[in-house]
Amino acid sequence: MRILISNDDGYFATGIAALAGALASEHEVTVCAPERDRSGASNSLTLDRPLSVRRAPSGFYYVNGTPTDCVHLAATGFLPEPPDMVVSGVNHGANMGDDTIYSGTVAAATEGYLLGVPAIAVSLASRNPQHFETAARVAAELIQRAAREPFRGAVLLNVNVPDLPYAELKGIKTTRLGRRHKSAPVIKDENPRGEPIWWIGPVGAAADAGEGTDFHAVAAGYVSVTPLSIDLTAHAQLDFVASWLPL
Amino acid sequence: MRILISNDDGYFATGIAALAGALASEHEVTVCAPERDRSGASNSLTLDRPLSVRRAPSGFYYVNGTPTDCVHLAATGFLPEPPDMVVSGVNHGANMGDDTIYSGTVAAATEGYLLGVPAIAVSLASRNPQHFETAARVAAELIQRAAREPFRGAVLLNVNVPDLPYAELKGIKTTRLGRRHKSAPVIKDENPRGEPIWWIGPVGAAADAGEGTDFHAVAAGYVSVTPLSIDLTAHAQLDFVASWLPL
Repeated sequence: MRILISNDDGYFATGIAALAGALASEHEVTVCAPERDRSGASNSLTLDRPLSVRRAPSGFYYVNGTPTDCVHLAATGFLPEPPDMVVSGVNHGANMGDDTIYSGTVAAATEGYLLGVPAIAVSLASRNPQHFETAARVAAELIQRAAREPFRGAVLLNVNVPDLPYAELKGIKTTRLGRRHKSAPVIKDENPRGEPIWWIGPVGAAADAGEGTDFHAVAAGYVSVTPLSIDLTAHAQLDFVASWLPL
Repeated sequence: MRILISNDDGYFATGIAALAGALASEHEVTVCAPERDRSGASNSLTLDRPLSVRRAPSGFYYVNGTPTDCVHLAATGFLPEPPDMVVSGVNHGANMGDDTIYSGTVAAATEGYLLGVPAIAVSLASRNPQHFETAARVAAELIQRAAREPFRGAVLLNVNVPDLPYAELKGIKTTRLGRRHKSAPVIKDENPRGEPIWWIGPVGAAADAGEGTDFHAVAAGYVSVTPLSIDLTAHAQLDFVASWLPL
């Protein structure tokens, strides 16, 4: 398969090299990723200036833009043919629950999906990730599976892998996204000139991490696979809103 | 009510002034918005540097960050009390269908919602928007309604208003998000130094714009109100993925 790899940590990241390494022997792999760390970029697209593409000694392409820019550019014109699959990662850190809304890793995969290409986001669920080869091997297995038994239509999978040696994984589970408590408040500080500055605080603790969630699966040592949708409509609220509206 | 207003067009935008003007007489309004146009910013959060807040002669606060940063900062520590409602807009242009994924306007409202605050995103659906006072008045009416009959729990509404004089609106409809065709390909060009550059192309035409969608309502002259969810889980695909997975 022709596989387009991207990420949000930058083209030089350990996780992207591990993923490309695990896929290169069986697939035609192209890497196109941001020139710098764009974690938290979500689905942002660069509309107000043009993008440039350069090639690193590793052969990886890098772009002065967001993860979404990279996939959009590569899949809609930069590459001679669109990819058969987009794989984003291996991210340095988990992307579970509400974090998926902010994630550049998930966004890169989402862009592939929106362009009609099956897509997988792969994250190594740890604050100090070590076992990139585990996550890369899990990704390679999922892609092998997709090659043998293709998805019906486009599919967007969000995969989180426990930071363990491959042999210690408990298995693989299909999950729903958990929920987090509210983030910690912004943190006020001063810059060296005595002016106030504000840092975005850490994310909240897991609020819904029960059986069936991504949080639960990963904590128990399982690979978590969540199919994602990009239809943000709250279908369950349509009737309530219709009855609430004036006029 | 204490209302926090933000947007993605920048604190100086016509739409934000129209909205603040329409709400100021009945509510305690604070504006906190990006210092420059951040359209297409999606839910991106600034994690790698601190943010600064400054105050314009208009009294509006502006931040060197994204729409999501602005709401997060204002609602979790910059303001003495969290707002009762977050209102994002009036955006210069529509935010319907798949565009909601990329929208900074929707993202600012989403951040309020994630923090537990009812939130409304308001967009004026036109490429050359004129009737900001129409959209601001619709927002004011929805907020008045919310004050009289509060939502049960947090609600996130995506509102698109036809670019018409208020008297010419046909009414208001609860809608689901439509879908677009794939975007146009990237556009290759050269910079003045003869180096290749790439522009993100225009969005695709509406693919699902049938009865019940936001596209359909606005084209027919109705205000479109879509309740949004932030649970990206594709619940309908869980069984298929579980049967598809290896192991």
